[in-house]
Amino acid sequence: MPFRLNAADPDFASRFDNFLDAKREGSIDVEEAVRVILARVRSEGDDALIDLTRRFDSLELTPDTLRISPEEIAQATAGTDPETMSALRLAHERILRHHERQKPVDDLYTDSIGATLGGRWTPIRSVGLYVPGGAASYPSSVLMNAVPAKVAGVSRIAMVVPARAGELNPLVLAAAQLAGVEEIYRIGGAQAVAALAFGTRTIAPVSKIVGPGNAYVATAKRQVFGTVGIDMIAGPSEVLIIADQDNNPEWLAADLLAQAEHDAAAQSILITDSPPLAAAVEDALERQLRRLPRQETARASWEEFGAIILVDDLMQQAPELTNRIAPEHLEIATDQPEALFALINDAGAVFLGRHTPEAIGDYVGGSNHVLPTSRSARFSSGLSVLDFMKRTSILKLTPESLRALAPAAIELARVEGLDAHGRSVAVRLNL
Amino acid sequence: MPFRLNAADPDFASRFDNFLDAKREGSIDVEEAVRVILARVRSEGDDALIDLTRRFDSLELTPDTLRISPEEIAQATAGTDPETMSALRLAHERILRHHERQKPVDDLYTDSIGATLGGRWTPIRSVGLYVPGGAASYPSSVLMNAVPAKVAGVSRIAMVVPARAGELNPLVLAAAQLAGVEEIYRIGGAQAVAALAFGTRTIAPVSKIVGPGNAYVATAKRQVFGTVGIDMIAGPSEVLIIADQDNNPEWLAADLLAQAEHDAAAQSILITDSPPLAAAVEDALERQLRRLPRQETARASWEEFGAIILVDDLMQQAPELTNRIAPEHLEIATDQPEALFALINDAGAVFLGRHTPEAIGDYVGGSNHVLPTSRSARFSSGLSVLDFMKRTSILKLTPESLRALAPAAIELARVEGLDAHGRSVAVRLNL
Repeated sequence: MPFRLNAADPDFASRFDNFLDAKREGSIDVEEAVRVILARVRSEGDDALIDLTRRFDSLELTPDTLRISPEEIAQATAGTDPETMSALRLAHERILRHHERQKPVDDLYTDSIGATLGGRWTPIRSVGLYVPGGAASYPSSVLMNAVPAKVAGVSRIAMVVPARAGELNPLVLAAAQLAGVEEIYRIGGAQAVAALAFGTRTIAPVSKIVGPGNAYVATAKRQVFGTVGIDMIAGPSEVLIIADQDNNPEWLAADLLAQAEHDAAAQSILITDSPPLAAAVEDALERQLRRLPRQETARASWEEFGAIILVDDLMQQAPELTNRIAPEHLEIATDQPEALFALINDAGAVFLGRHTPEAIGDYVGGSNHVLPTSRSARFSSGLSVLDFMKRTSILKLTPESLRALAPAAIELARVEGLDAHGRSVAVRLNL
Repeated sequence: MPFRLNAADPDFASRFDNFLDAKREGSIDVEEAVRVILARVRSEGDDALIDLTRRFDSLELTPDTLRISPEEIAQATAGTDPETMSALRLAHERILRHHERQKPVDDLYTDSIGATLGGRWTPIRSVGLYVPGGAASYPSSVLMNAVPAKVAGVSRIAMVVPARAGELNPLVLAAAQLAGVEEIYRIGGAQAVAALAFGTRTIAPVSKIVGPGNAYVATAKRQVFGTVGIDMIAGPSEVLIIADQDNNPEWLAADLLAQAEHDAAAQSILITDSPPLAAAVEDALERQLRRLPRQETARASWEEFGAIILVDDLMQQAPELTNRIAPEHLEIATDQPEALFALINDAGAVFLGRHTPEAIGDYVGGSNHVLPTSRSARFSSGLSVLDFMKRTSILKLTPESLRALAPAAIELARVEGLDAHGRSVAVRLNL
């Protein structure tokens, strides 16, 4: 049974706190196991990679077969159903066009004393892209991770995807080819992260690793953070729908289930000011659930983590509750969704109006579906071109602007006890 | 004795590899100690904080004295030497003006099929700022961390600074007041990070923690990453100077020493095509060293980690070496520094020309001095206003644009086995 909260209840505040604090993920501790794997790949390279792939993926590789051949990739594309291929192409095209707008602009200016300041953006030169195997091996995720990297100008993208017993999702390869990713290895797990971070004889190291993965992959990324950059550690996914009474309950139920089918730890939340709508959504959801192929997962998610929160006034109460939840996905199904959105600070992505199901954003909207989960929208953003670039800050002084700034710099160096700092300024002025 | 490398030597490639791989930091393993501290503060709150502060900082606090009073802050400012205060004011003013240019611009547009897409930037609502105690308690760092947060619009900045035996650097408080930081606690170490991440009765939790610290602080930040956001984990600092023959060796020596005096693990590197300049810099450095108050630290850094790299041709060889070093600070002391800079991809900050000592950037240049260390400029940027904001991506469809995108979304949902995704689209079309 989902959580049922009513803002009018006297104990709402504490019940909402409990709801927020409810853990959605068993935290299996794989720290030590991952540490051992990383150390082995770091010291033994390809040999360790091949041995660990034999053990964990039941796949026998050699240094020559680690990498997927161009023929195999071309074959996957050729074998893809034309309708699927054209859907992937539309997705690719729209994601590309949207992300091209995100390219940051360099700034360089000279101020009133003649000092030139600025920032120059350059691409990260090499990026590793982790793609999960098995049921969660999604071609859409390949596009969402690879396209912003390409737009940023990353010159080398090395993709890894585990092939348990040799099995690969050909659509993942087709999506990679569409996105222009050519360097793909059939490896996964913490050992693949290690290979990308430290390099082996066959796989050159990268500077940043992105992409989702299981607990081993997430822990490995956390452990190599510093040696390389990483994107967010993804947790279970969530949607929050804010809806007034004028909604079709079937539509909202379908959206809640689209989230719930991802994972038993996914979370679907409805905030409404209409008790009849809440009841109708719950009924519709129950009916739709029975017809879902992934009924078991969706039901587990809805019954354990789903929530319906009743409030008196959406405009007055929904924004604060939304900020506290900081949902990955936020649907605002009202007539004036912008007015409500303007009051909300923390959400990974917003889907405005009654005709914008979140699933469109997962595939073909054009915006990125890699978004901050588990309340991390309080402090982080969805994946973008910026995640594949970095800024070098620029300072250039003339003799005159140096002279103007010198006394203050020397004084601050003095009080901080950093004399050599002060001297490096003073020596240029013959002080 | 510093490393001496010559690109003309037959074994240069492997010697350069060894130089890059040389570890500059002892990695004391404090994982377990930090884990225990975090868990205690999480469960016992203020009591643990007070107990740990008694133990580690020899300071007896109560919930009422955890926070530094407005009077104490005002007193610190009032007691600051006017010349220091005016230097701080100049620094604050210039940092503020520069960072105001970094505010990102929202993007919202409607495409050819009538879909509206975009991104909206909002400030992180609450940020914790760690300021080290003791000798590394720098007022300039307070400005560099607090000003971009203020510019971003962060509404709550909670600062922590350890006060061993009650001692605080009044300049740190003065800098905080100048930057508009009013909520300051006299705590430090992993326990302060825990208080900021999890909250206690006295200290409300924040959403992101920034600022430098020792191994305990860095490890604590790494462990709470996910619960809150963090900035980079700072390693030892480094400067790389690319210089042609037309340089005053005294100036370059002074710049190398300004880096070296920070920390015995700091690193100062000179790349030049002029053997006589290299020799003159080394001589000048030795002479200047003897007169430095922090001679011991600077000498340890220079002799253990300093390097002079001779190349035949700066334009041909320096850029690739620089990219591989990916220095935190890069000085280009040539006549046409922009031409060389254009060939370099990876550096945290660049200081162009002969009149731009890096120390100006540390204090009053206006750009940020919190920069990626230990080769992380390959994948990350210096601190900026963007680090205190996050983007919510926006999608809004009309019935017509939904109809246009629906078939492709439904097809991709189908091949990914996510039927509820497809249904949430189809249900709106009466399919």
